[in-house]
Amino acid sequence: MTLHDTSDDRVDQIIERAVRASEQWKRASIAERARALDTVADALDQHADELIPVAQRETHLAEARLRGELRRTTFQLRMFAEMLPEGLWLDARIDHADAEWPMGAPRPDLRRQLEPIGATLVFAASNFPFAFSVAGGDTASALAAGNAVVLKAHHGHPDLSDATTAVVVDALAAAGAPEGLFQTIHGTEAGVRALRAPGVKAAAFTGSVKGGRALFDIAATRPEPIPFYGELGSTNPAFVTKRAADKDAAGIARDFVASVTGSAGQLCTKPGVLFVPAGSSIVAELEAQRLPAAAPLLNSGIESGFRDSLASTRAVAGVRTLSAGAGAGAGVDGDSGADAGAPAPVLLAASSETLRAEMDTLMSEMFGPAALVVTYDDESEMLEIADRLEGQLTATVIGEDDDEIVVDLLPKLTARAGRVLWNQWPTGVSVTWAQQHGGPYPATTAVGTTSVGMAAITRFLRPVAYQNVPESLLPDALKEGNPLGIARRVDGVLTLP
Amino acid sequence: MTLHDTSDDRVDQIIERAVRASEQWKRASIAERARALDTVADALDQHADELIPVAQRETHLAEARLRGELRRTTFQLRMFAEMLPEGLWLDARIDHADAEWPMGAPRPDLRRQLEPIGATLVFAASNFPFAFSVAGGDTASALAAGNAVVLKAHHGHPDLSDATTAVVVDALAAAGAPEGLFQTIHGTEAGVRALRAPGVKAAAFTGSVKGGRALFDIAATRPEPIPFYGELGSTNPAFVTKRAADKDAAGIARDFVASVTGSAGQLCTKPGVLFVPAGSSIVAELEAQRLPAAAPLLNSGIESGFRDSLASTRAVAGVRTLSAGAGAGAGVDGDSGADAGAPAPVLLAASSETLRAEMDTLMSEMFGPAALVVTYDDESEMLEIADRLEGQLTATVIGEDDDEIVVDLLPKLTARAGRVLWNQWPTGVSVTWAQQHGGPYPATTAVGTTSVGMAAITRFLRPVAYQNVPESLLPDALKEGNPLGIARRVDGVLTLP
Repeated sequence: MTLHDTSDDRVDQIIERAVRASEQWKRASIAERARALDTVADALDQHADELIPVAQRETHLAEARLRGELRRTTFQLRMFAEMLPEGLWLDARIDHADAEWPMGAPRPDLRRQLEPIGATLVFAASNFPFAFSVAGGDTASALAAGNAVVLKAHHGHPDLSDATTAVVVDALAAAGAPEGLFQTIHGTEAGVRALRAPGVKAAAFTGSVKGGRALFDIAATRPEPIPFYGELGSTNPAFVTKRAADKDAAGIARDFVASVTGSAGQLCTKPGVLFVPAGSSIVAELEAQRLPAAAPLLNSGIESGFRDSLASTRAVAGVRTLSAGAGAGAGVDGDSGADAGAPAPVLLAASSETLRAEMDTLMSEMFGPAALVVTYDDESEMLEIADRLEGQLTATVIGEDDDEIVVDLLPKLTARAGRVLWNQWPTGVSVTWAQQHGGPYPATTAVGTTSVGMAAITRFLRPVAYQNVPESLLPDALKEGNPLGIARRVDGVLTLP
Repeated sequence: MTLHDTSDDRVDQIIERAVRASEQWKRASIAERARALDTVADALDQHADELIPVAQRETHLAEARLRGELRRTTFQLRMFAEMLPEGLWLDARIDHADAEWPMGAPRPDLRRQLEPIGATLVFAASNFPFAFSVAGGDTASALAAGNAVVLKAHHGHPDLSDATTAVVVDALAAAGAPEGLFQTIHGTEAGVRALRAPGVKAAAFTGSVKGGRALFDIAATRPEPIPFYGELGSTNPAFVTKRAADKDAAGIARDFVASVTGSAGQLCTKPGVLFVPAGSSIVAELEAQRLPAAAPLLNSGIESGFRDSLASTRAVAGVRTLSAGAGAGAGVDGDSGADAGAPAPVLLAASSETLRAEMDTLMSEMFGPAALVVTYDDESEMLEIADRLEGQLTATVIGEDDDEIVVDLLPKLTARAGRVLWNQWPTGVSVTWAQQHGGPYPATTAVGTTSVGMAAITRFLRPVAYQNVPESLLPDALKEGNPLGIARRVDGVLTLP
């Protein structure tokens, strides 16, 4: 525990305040919730010039990338605010009483909507100090859903976390939100204590498989288990068909390298393994690619984790270095990479035979600027490999529309990944209505959910049915007269306002 | 392990077949899925006269109740079949590419729908040998969602399970469904082995807190954790306001007793605790109620569990017997109830002071024909108690529309229960579009879901996004031309076919 860490007593006070704030916030109107989100977005924009330098200093990410990320963050807050009044996310359903219900017993008047789940604990990620941190996606969707948020700051950017928290707290106060609606805690122990607190009703996390699984286990073994929405890790395989490789080897090599090395490879959707035809000129094109020079990673923990995973991959017989950027720890086969200095980007290569023999090691995520290129002889090998994939955030196919193999490959990939891409690369996760960021374990701990895009709000809601409740006591979304003017399912039929 | 139990080898074969069948079934058209459900419903109706006597022998439930339950079961299958073509459950979303997307980077073409989660393990319940067993709600919704089902039979009705399985398997074959789409296993060890099998991707359960939590823990500690939809237990408190008590004490007493003693109290929504004003004539009315005579419970395990929970409640100082039915183990205070013979229905009583001092014991579920009547002096005591409630399937208010207390009471109850009722009783869970059967833990292990009603299908689905995928490779629900003719969210706007 460091001086900066939140004490046990303070954590308990914070949870207590969050529970009270949640009870108040769930009664706020949709317009009040939307205004609060917009106010936070405006305040972040106004404080950009103060926040960006702090972020640069603490994360080593470039200014342009950070400004883009902040724009994404405020866009996300505003998009949730814009979505709220439309109300489809409430999934409002009204069944009128029906004495002749064919089930064999009269149907009572039943009305159901989604309601806030309660005080929510959000664990910030290191690699997006704005978009997946203090005021990031999980915070935005939990607030939009009507819950208070306790934010566990990432130790990689504590000052930025405090600075952003101050902006958020002031903005929420200005918007008239209840005190304690958003609070930040620091320290691993504080996070665990909060996760165990009975007042916390849901948690969200973005980070490593190891850390995420440990927290998931805590959430699942509480006396009252709570939903834990963990986005843990993914190798994001990309498959290039023979005809696609023949058509544009240079373009594929260029775009793949850009996707692997952007943000120094520290993106959860980085394509970590690329399958290409043996003998294709893609391999030569990749060898010829000039990789970026070594650059510091987010923090020393990320850097040592990257070196370890890279060393494990390189230790497999049959894995060779295809190309590397200038700088420390790069290039030379057998180099342990344990010397000082930032790690250089590197592309490794192996045959599909080697991959299949060491699938667990070679399909593990290397979080940082590295990827493995796997050469196959026959396209059907991609089907075998797809069958053995663990859960993934994304899977990519670079192909031609009339490639026969993709008819079989695509369904295998949709069974194992949350997002399947065609002739595009998986990094750069757009915030949209249809986005899906989450897949089977270990990509996420909650396969039915997303942490990016508008569907993320459902994670922080729970259904409640009202039976035979008089109009005056019903929530607005379920009143007969539809005062919110939202689309509802009435007696089974989707009914527009 | 008994002779009837499924061997390890056989379980493994069954899972393997279920995985293959799931892969085939997910490619079946919506019309094929609907036809299969209808065919199963028709076959169950045709075999009713064979199945009902087996159910009567194994469960001690009355013929009329079982016939009603079978009707509910086939209704449920048909209702899912009817819902499928409408397609709103697919939550189809289409975002067209947008170069000017204000996030700061172009939006790609993204399309998202819900897809089958994979082979599903369903644990049958004892108390509904049709509606929550072999061909019950979980089976219906998992099949409707496009998954194969492995059914762990309840040991309370093994012969009925086998007989129903035969009907279901034959009907599915007749409807052209893949082999292995529905299979049944027997035995606790077989169930645990199946729950640990990597091929199983989701599980559903209805039963006790103890059994359900043990299975939840197994699901959560797998190398790949899977969703475990457990419906565990609930006390279903009911609150009577002073004015309601004054208005119709006799009616409240009569309807409460009917709800408590129906199906010998073996319903997960039985109102287990009734709060009434001290000095109200409801107490006298309840004392005067003639309770049904002792009747055998579902099986010896249920019976001994009921005796234990009843004895724990009676052991609390201040708990007295209000009334009891004729028969063994009833009536006399201090009676251990451990003598032979079926247990008689019993109503106990205590003050709210006693309840508050022994809340854990007195708010525990007594699964069987018993309930506790709690007298309060001031209506505000109901608010205090509501604040301390564990998660519930239901909470009931018997009140007058302009009772002031309910304005505060109702939100406290909706925060803790999945369904809140007004002047109706919670037993008799209608299968409808808006039904919600599930609440915070321990009512369920998955607070965001329901196990009854049409929304249950979402438990067995997972979202998949398609980025930049050509029309020919898209699933029908996401094709530009909308060949399924379903409502979709297109560029954020709900768009009807």
